[in-house]
Amino acid sequence: MASSVRAMGHLPPWPPGLAPMACCSRAALRKWLPILAWLPHYSVHWLKMDFIAGLSVALTVIPQALAYAEVAGLPPQYGLYSAFMGCFVYLFLGTSRDVTLGPTAIMSLLVSTYTFHEPAYAVLLAFLSGCIQLAMRFLGLGFLLDFISCPVIKGFTSAAAVTIGFGQIKNLLGLQHIPRQFVLQVDHIFRSLGETRVGDLAMGLISLLLLLLLKLLRHHMPPIHPEMPLSARLSHGLVWTATTARNALVVFFAAVMAYSFELTGYQPFLLTGKIVKGLPPVQTPPFSLTTANGTVSFTEMVQDMGAGLAVVPLMGLLESIAVAKSFASQNNYRIDANQELLSIGLTNVLGSLFSSFPVTGSFGRTAVNAQSGACTPAGGLLTGVLVLLSLDYLTAPFYYIPKAALAAVIIMAVAPLFDAQIVRTLWRVKRLDLLPLSVTFLFCFWEVQYGILAGTLVSLLILLYSVARPEIQVSEQPVLVVQPVSGLHFPATEALREVLVSWALEASPPCCAILECSRVCSVDYTVVLGLRELLDDFRRQGVTLVFAGLQGPVLRILVSADLKGLQHFPTLEEAERYLSQEPGTQPYHFSDDSVPELKVALLQA
Amino acid sequence: MASSVRAMGHLPPWPPGLAPMACCSRAALRKWLPILAWLPHYSVHWLKMDFIAGLSVALTVIPQALAYAEVAGLPPQYGLYSAFMGCFVYLFLGTSRDVTLGPTAIMSLLVSTYTFHEPAYAVLLAFLSGCIQLAMRFLGLGFLLDFISCPVIKGFTSAAAVTIGFGQIKNLLGLQHIPRQFVLQVDHIFRSLGETRVGDLAMGLISLLLLLLLKLLRHHMPPIHPEMPLSARLSHGLVWTATTARNALVVFFAAVMAYSFELTGYQPFLLTGKIVKGLPPVQTPPFSLTTANGTVSFTEMVQDMGAGLAVVPLMGLLESIAVAKSFASQNNYRIDANQELLSIGLTNVLGSLFSSFPVTGSFGRTAVNAQSGACTPAGGLLTGVLVLLSLDYLTAPFYYIPKAALAAVIIMAVAPLFDAQIVRTLWRVKRLDLLPLSVTFLFCFWEVQYGILAGTLVSLLILLYSVARPEIQVSEQPVLVVQPVSGLHFPATEALREVLVSWALEASPPCCAILECSRVCSVDYTVVLGLRELLDDFRRQGVTLVFAGLQGPVLRILVSADLKGLQHFPTLEEAERYLSQEPGTQPYHFSDDSVPELKVALLQA
Repeated sequence: MASSVRAMGHLPPWPPGLAPMACCSRAALRKWLPILAWLPHYSVHWLKMDFIAGLSVALTVIPQALAYAEVAGLPPQYGLYSAFMGCFVYLFLGTSRDVTLGPTAIMSLLVSTYTFHEPAYAVLLAFLSGCIQLAMRFLGLGFLLDFISCPVIKGFTSAAAVTIGFGQIKNLLGLQHIPRQFVLQVDHIFRSLGETRVGDLAMGLISLLLLLLLKLLRHHMPPIHPEMPLSARLSHGLVWTATTARNALVVFFAAVMAYSFELTGYQPFLLTGKIVKGLPPVQTPPFSLTTANGTVSFTEMVQDMGAGLAVVPLMGLLESIAVAKSFASQNNYRIDANQELLSIGLTNVLGSLFSSFPVTGSFGRTAVNAQSGACTPAGGLLTGVLVLLSLDYLTAPFYYIPKAALAAVIIMAVAPLFDAQIVRTLWRVKRLDLLPLSVTFLFCFWEVQYGILAGTLVSLLILLYSVARPEIQVSEQPVLVVQPVSGLHFPATEALREVLVSWALEASPPCCAILECSRVCSVDYTVVLGLRELLDDFRRQGVTLVFAGLQGPVLRILVSADLKGLQHFPTLEEAERYLSQEPGTQPYHFSDDSVPELKVALLQA
Repeated sequence: MASSVRAMGHLPPWPPGLAPMACCSRAALRKWLPILAWLPHYSVHWLKMDFIAGLSVALTVIPQALAYAEVAGLPPQYGLYSAFMGCFVYLFLGTSRDVTLGPTAIMSLLVSTYTFHEPAYAVLLAFLSGCIQLAMRFLGLGFLLDFISCPVIKGFTSAAAVTIGFGQIKNLLGLQHIPRQFVLQVDHIFRSLGETRVGDLAMGLISLLLLLLLKLLRHHMPPIHPEMPLSARLSHGLVWTATTARNALVVFFAAVMAYSFELTGYQPFLLTGKIVKGLPPVQTPPFSLTTANGTVSFTEMVQDMGAGLAVVPLMGLLESIAVAKSFASQNNYRIDANQELLSIGLTNVLGSLFSSFPVTGSFGRTAVNAQSGACTPAGGLLTGVLVLLSLDYLTAPFYYIPKAALAAVIIMAVAPLFDAQIVRTLWRVKRLDLLPLSVTFLFCFWEVQYGILAGTLVSLLILLYSVARPEIQVSEQPVLVVQPVSGLHFPATEALREVLVSWALEASPPCCAILECSRVCSVDYTVVLGLRELLDDFRRQGVTLVFAGLQGPVLRILVSADLKGLQHFPTLEEAERYLSQEPGTQPYHFSDDSVPELKVALLQA
């Protein structure tokens, strides 16, 4: 029993026996609010594990949020404003136990590109991105993400890693007044190397070294056995905590050191400085902006952000879906991509009411969550509450965090994004894919959107070229057989014509040909016209073109187009026997008077 | 003996025995200058036939050129300036004996859209279009034309027919000061109906009627027999001449009538008016323009023409290739598309030195040429000379041509372009193609370039959607077999994954699956990554995914990607026997230690 499937959007086609559920049933409600599925089964063990996971993620996200706000070109508290809504929304809507939504390095880079270091733009961008993501969810446009190919994603993330990492060099060296544009930055930094501040450099290098050591320690920890003695298990737990919360640890010690220096009256480090205390004000996103030069209207703000309104929502969706899928696959469960789109869209819309900038799924913190043993998204509740508490009670100590330590946190977070290996892999596996990769990588240094757009265009052009010039097999024994190997779309009409004309009609003498179409699933009107012209050309030259192996729907289209002289054989062998003049083989003629009845028969079939 | 062909550009792949010729041989020269191939064999009979054809075309092109200049919004002499260069260039370079290049209704409409009725813009557009067409010829970009599908072309030509035809209603009614924008025009004309001039209306309707009668007569002429008496053959020749040169005839009588009225002192018709006498000045195209408001620089002129610089060269190429192919097919000879591209590009570049606006292949005059029995492009020489002579000696009589008569000539020329039948055909053959057709048709009334662009985008989206969601066949007996029916490109990775996951991994219990890839001709890196994830997913669930029927190049790519757990069987039957646990079937494992040797073996194969 064979059936033919055309997968729609991100919704899987339902296998037999799994009919789609009714819209208002309890199952449908659980599909929309996955919390209803796991909450009734919640256990003390889960609570313990989720608590540890939530705490670990909080200890990672708080220093990262401060750091990423700097990447986004916004005051540090905006990082924290962006770090809690995702936790709460995902608690209700998420279908992965591991994913955490919040500020990420790549999103922050995009935000800095499109919002001119102006919080009002960033918050409006979060709101509009969320709306666009929700619209994509409900209009079933998730399939658009399929058109961003892996080489483009790799090229973009590698370029982003370089941009973000290099953007932190100035903080590592204690340089000030460095422009943000990449090329200018490189130039400025090299010319200002003499102004390097020794204190910041030392702090930065020590932080980097510590983070690297703790990371290596994390990777080489022996597994824990229940029969280990308590002391061993305790020390194991200690090392585990230290390595998991390494960002918080390093930042904490750096802040303590800066505070000690402050007490002595000498401050060798550049500090994060004053952070606005307290919860963010709840308000509608800023639909206009009042500056010294007058009011910027909503329309002007939208025009200023331009391509950002396409790049930010798309990259946000892409990143969060990629993170969710990756961990679902590693940990052996299934996510619902539509539900993930809903979560990220709603997080951005609701977050914008609390002055959040655009967020997405964070690969690093999701990994922390998974490694901490999260059982449900409930840990997010603790993470979110801790972020809010830090805004209320920790802004004073945050003052003393050296910028160089945060720079080290960012550099360690983005370093794994740079993938030099991919060039070797693509060289080995598929060299042509190096083209979209390098186009994306290089253009991203000019403008992020140009990089992604140009890379995607190159991917699509390669794809369209292969559709327009498909492989066409030609065999000459015993008769000329021409077979499009992988479908026949309208741009390929000309290529097919060239092959048939040059092999059959320009041969001397012109010879008959069989067009074997078993691999052609559908044809459009342009192809039909091309075939009609071919049939005319063959008839004029006094030779025959017959079709073999046409699939039902394709045959139906050709018959309905009244092609003059259309002859079809179900199999290639029959067509060959007919053209070899063997007696007893008759084609199914579809021309002249027999058309109407045949058409009726076919259409009723 | 089977061979695989990937047709390149518009050059046919060479069938065996027809090796491409050396670049500098005499054959190559004949390829570049086709006149060298036919001139040595030129005969008196050919001369006679070409003379008649050249004269017939000249009698058609002179009134049309005056009329099309009005469509283009330029003074009438510019139509004649545009009508001779194509004849001379095609004489040397053309590969079709029928094609005539010159001003056409559609090109004139495009010119009026992009050149603001300013001759300097029109001439510069001709020059730049020619350069772009030549660049496309030499960069092998002719394949771009394949991406403009038939429904888009049909939608565009129908919209153009309506726009051009309706644009002449004002001349038919003798209305003045009517705006050129379509919607405004319709509105204005209906409101000015009361100002209709009776003389012009009568002249217009009579001209239309005469043209229609002569056209019908032409279509119903009995064939001529050599054994007919001389008188019958003479009258046949007379009718043939009258019907072929019907445009010239009607315009001539209209002008005579207007002149007679002028002598009586009463002029009931709006006249063409003064036409600048003499050959156009030979000069470089205007790279800047001096107006009352100052000088418009080259950059500004280019920006003003905008999308016209893409639309005009592309539609020009499309129209001339379509005309050449259509007549080559009807009259049973082959054209060289590359040579046609060269001719049209060179005609526009050289024409612009003589103040020509952009030209292309004319369907109507090519038909006249073919029906007059042209044997070579030599008739073009006569046509071109007659156009030049008319500029020198006939501008005075041209003064008296009533505008209404020229309007009738245009309306009769564009009426066949409007194809209402196509809607019924598409409804019957392929309903989805109605979408690009109607999008193109409607948008063309807004702006021509938006129509063509939007229609092409819709075509491409339909194409890309079918590539992203390809048909995937699933059969469950005796084991699960999943087969992409027509290739596997990167946007389809997700769809394939959904099918395999939902049918194999989400079944209870999870089952093994065969991925039958005999119809997959190539894979890219995104597909490879997707397959790697699938293999990982299957391994984690403890079931097997095996490949069957991989083609050599695809297998080579998968092996070079070191996919863990890759197992391949040359045929589906072997894979089925292996999964059914029949003894004696061993897959070709490509993982672990055996990879390097296998890879070497494969790459050497």
